Amino acid sequence: MAAQDRDGESERAEKVGDVGEFGLIDRIVARLPVGGGVIVGPGDDTAVVAAPDGRVVITTDVLVEGRHFRREWSSAQDVGHKAAAASLADVAAMGAQPTALVVGFGAPTWLPADWAADCSTGLAEEAARAGASVVGGDVVSAECVIVSVTAIGDLQGRRPVLRSGAEPGDVLALAGGLGESAAGLALLRAGHRDPGQVLAAHRRPQPPYPAGPAAAMAGASSMIDVSDGLVADARHLAEASGVIIEIDTSQLPRSPNVVLAAERLGCDPQDWLLQGGEDHALLASFPPATTMPSPFRPIGRVQATVPGQAGPGVQVDGIRWSTGGGFDHFD
Amino acid sequence: MAAQDRDGESERAEKVGDVGEFGLIDRIVARLPVGGGVIVGPGDDTAVVAAPDGRVVITTDVLVEGRHFRREWSSAQDVGHKAAAASLADVAAMGAQPTALVVGFGAPTWLPADWAADCSTGLAEEAARAGASVVGGDVVSAECVIVSVTAIGDLQGRRPVLRSGAEPGDVLALAGGLGESAAGLALLRAGHRDPGQVLAAHRRPQPPYPAGPAAAMAGASSMIDVSDGLVADARHLAEASGVIIEIDTSQLPRSPNVVLAAERLGCDPQDWLLQGGEDHALLASFPPATTMPSPFRPIGRVQATVPGQAGPGVQVDGIRWSTGGGFDHFD
Repeated sequence: MAAQDRDGESERAEKVGDVGEFGLIDRIVARLPVGGGVIVGPGDDTAVVAAPDGRVVITTDVLVEGRHFRREWSSAQDVGHKAAAASLADVAAMGAQPTALVVGFGAPTWLPADWAADCSTGLAEEAARAGASVVGGDVVSAECVIVSVTAIGDLQGRRPVLRSGAEPGDVLALAGGLGESAAGLALLRAGHRDPGQVLAAHRRPQPPYPAGPAAAMAGASSMIDVSDGLVADARHLAEASGVIIEIDTSQLPRSPNVVLAAERLGCDPQDWLLQGGEDHALLASFPPATTMPSPFRPIGRVQATVPGQAGPGVQVDGIRWSTGGGFDHFD
Repeated sequence: MAAQDRDGESERAEKVGDVGEFGLIDRIVARLPVGGGVIVGPGDDTAVVAAPDGRVVITTDVLVEGRHFRREWSSAQDVGHKAAAASLADVAAMGAQPTALVVGFGAPTWLPADWAADCSTGLAEEAARAGASVVGGDVVSAECVIVSVTAIGDLQGRRPVLRSGAEPGDVLALAGGLGESAAGLALLRAGHRDPGQVLAAHRRPQPPYPAGPAAAMAGASSMIDVSDGLVADARHLAEASGVIIEIDTSQLPRSPNVVLAAERLGCDPQDWLLQGGEDHALLASFPPATTMPSPFRPIGRVQATVPGQAGPGVQVDGIRWSTGGGFDHFD
């Protein structure tokens, strides 16, 4: 059987193909706690979720096996956490409070049914961390394992914090870790299976969800979720705002995980800090007089472009990064 | 090259892998008109959409190549229409007005970039038919073509119409076509490439979106989108409501498309009417004195279960259908 060929899963374990689409949905729904603000939960044509602000923020992210995760490196629950975090962090990056998730799940028939159910547990746990609930989904047969998560959130009366609001003179600040997911991935790729705390940063990123609304309340002028890498996402801010963003590497956080992985692999962690994706830190700009909310820390500044010179972009320690600085899923 | 092996696409046509993730997103966003109610459109961490009711309905559906569509039978634009319709019809089935879609797009690197862009055009056109806008998405590399659509909508002050509200004595009514998609699919499977109007019903289902809010306003007691097949979805209503649903086949709509396909294939169209999925008609129950809004027509009635006899379920012309009546994507 294909499942055993792939990774030695037990012949007796029930497969997705055994329990069928509706059986799988029943198992998944049984794992979903329903939190506040959910007016109609899973099981009808749609869910109904409170949107007290009168506006709703919405974003979607797709994770594909072999590209965003490997089943031999991450448990099903890990994948659920990671898939939920990718969308929930986008909601926080608008300054909004996440309220609900819906999940599209593509599963090969040979996939153990428990994998799908455990993944849902991870999704629900991560949603709960962010104050949201999983309220619905769809399960289809597919050639590979795909988890598509759409998150919505509530602005609680605040204006959304866009990418386009950074102004020259603003302070550039970061909440959350950098390079931790990349460090864990580098260890896994090199064949290491420990230390666990470094690998955990790759398997279950920990976006600082409350920092998003806190930044909005403090008056952040722009904000973005760092999912593609610090330089790449800083460039998104710079281009949307028409400014130059200067990053000071001496101010970047170097977590114990990153330091430990660099020691193990005998390398310089700088690339992970600048180009590692999927940590889901929040990068924001604040007007200079702002008292930044915890855990934001300054890591650079926003500068005006100079007529006749290079346009909007990113400088690292005063040196222009003309391209790259992140990864493209088709490279 | 894989693309040519598959379906003779030109070697010169640009592939998804050539233009990259961000290039593809730029092409897609360029095709998206932004309608009313969109406060922040595509391009930031999330979109922001008006939710004047203070509640938002949300649903997600995933379409996979080879299971829900074939690229040799449907154009990219067709697939976009069909993927959007699947989610938008769920919103209408709650009695809500669709407002926005986000799309997760899994694309092999060999897929022509124009296929992805044309699919987006179809998504945007179908969204516009329903009064909604495409406001965001994610593009990832995947082994197969996958389109995941999440739709949200606004209840406009009405209560959501659930599956669980059907009462004995209610009239069972249908808006929209039955068996048309199945008839078109049967023709395609048998190798027919015409008549075009029958195949169009398979390629681009036409859910009666305005009938959803109209049913809610008229006082519908329950409603469901007919996506799995009439009997299967009637069973969902019956089980959620704890009733028996009686379908009178003499009252079912027989469209010219269904009749034409049955003549071509020399078969009885009854199976298509009762078990064909993906037409996205709306099946609703109304209290007996209700004036049903157009285009709803009565097709049966709701009855009480009898203690000691079979529980909630579906009867067709007085005969109990104990199982089946639709399809399971893992069968």
